[in-house]
Amino acid sequence: MIPITDPRIEEYLRGLAPEDDTHLIAMEQRAKELAFPIVDRLVGRLLYLLTRLRQPQLVVELGSGFGYSAWWFARAVSITGTVVMTDRDGANLDYARTMFRQNGLIDRLEFREGDALEIGREYRDIDILFIDLDKEQYRLAAETMIPRLAKNALLIADNALWYGRVAEGGDDPETRGIREFNDFMCLRRDFFTTIIPLRDGVMLAYRLS
Amino acid sequence: MIPITDPRIEEYLRGLAPEDDTHLIAMEQRAKELAFPIVDRLVGRLLYLLTRLRQPQLVVELGSGFGYSAWWFARAVSITGTVVMTDRDGANLDYARTMFRQNGLIDRLEFREGDALEIGREYRDIDILFIDLDKEQYRLAAETMIPRLAKNALLIADNALWYGRVAEGGDDPETRGIREFNDFMCLRRDFFTTIIPLRDGVMLAYRLS
Repeated sequence: MIPITDPRIEEYLRGLAPEDDTHLIAMEQRAKELAFPIVDRLVGRLLYLLTRLRQPQLVVELGSGFGYSAWWFARAVSITGTVVMTDRDGANLDYARTMFRQNGLIDRLEFREGDALEIGREYRDIDILFIDLDKEQYRLAAETMIPRLAKNALLIADNALWYGRVAEGGDDPETRGIREFNDFMCLRRDFFTTIIPLRDGVMLAYRLS
Repeated sequence: MIPITDPRIEEYLRGLAPEDDTHLIAMEQRAKELAFPIVDRLVGRLLYLLTRLRQPQLVVELGSGFGYSAWWFARAVSITGTVVMTDRDGANLDYARTMFRQNGLIDRLEFREGDALEIGREYRDIDILFIDLDKEQYRLAAETMIPRLAKNALLIADNALWYGRVAEGGDDPETRGIREFNDFMCLRRDFFTTIIPLRDGVMLAYRLS
């Protein structure tokens, strides 16, 4: 395992941009207590900034958990924008539904229980696709969803460095899954793809046409 | 000094996205030979992606060197877009002029010799501002240029982590300059600001109105 960002840098960055939103803090607390994987605050802030730049009408998340990344997306889309959450676990979606009802953003959300890829397939003209499901499924997710993306869409994938294991020659199914996905995206000429070494690696792939 | 990205990660990322443009390779070679500071290829790729997302008409660079970052911006703006290079050293601009004449992008460039801030002041409605001048001048540059930014402009600053020294409590003038600049931007309510721990730290500040 390779540490991707030095903890002192992370601490400095967190100190620069304190957040006092009670739902955000509650979600981070919940993730810690349940050892539930979430993108962290620095990644969340990057998602927010990218979403503001892209100004999407439709954001689809493949693998939403209880709504941490959706919280960032939902704040960044305009009042006419929609963020589709997908999760197998109805309890996660219930948690998110309650939170978004309380913070007044619920009209921007869709809550979809079931298999993320099966649900994802129903959508067209997706402006931002966020991939955060089983690592073995990443490449299949890209293949399935790319025809469903809008012009100049942004595909964002979490865990693109997978604890650094992709760079260490790891050969377990998850590391292999991520590595194949990275190769698949980086070789495509119809996307401009780069990976930001932030937390566990964030792939950004911009559709060039 | 804190290493910001592990060299093994950097190597993996560079391997994923090989570049064969002869001017790019020549510039990287030149930077190495002259020990001339440039943003590296991973930062260049991020600049390209952000520029595609923002679709600017006007990019202004404060501190351009011989054109490494301008190469990424110039490729990413549309044919009607302009990238303004500024540098004190006419020889740097001559180098860039020759390169952009050869690669056919010269119509997208302006080459301005002199004090970056004095030149920058002449522009209005800047969509992307790139700050890479003396570190003591960063905050002054932000104060001077913010009134000259367009709606929803993106301010990008290189060296926002300054070899990690900002997180180590360094107190030399340059570290202090960067720290004051970071605080200044992060406290503003009219910008959404985050720092990406890529290479030497890239600040991204999105103007919210």
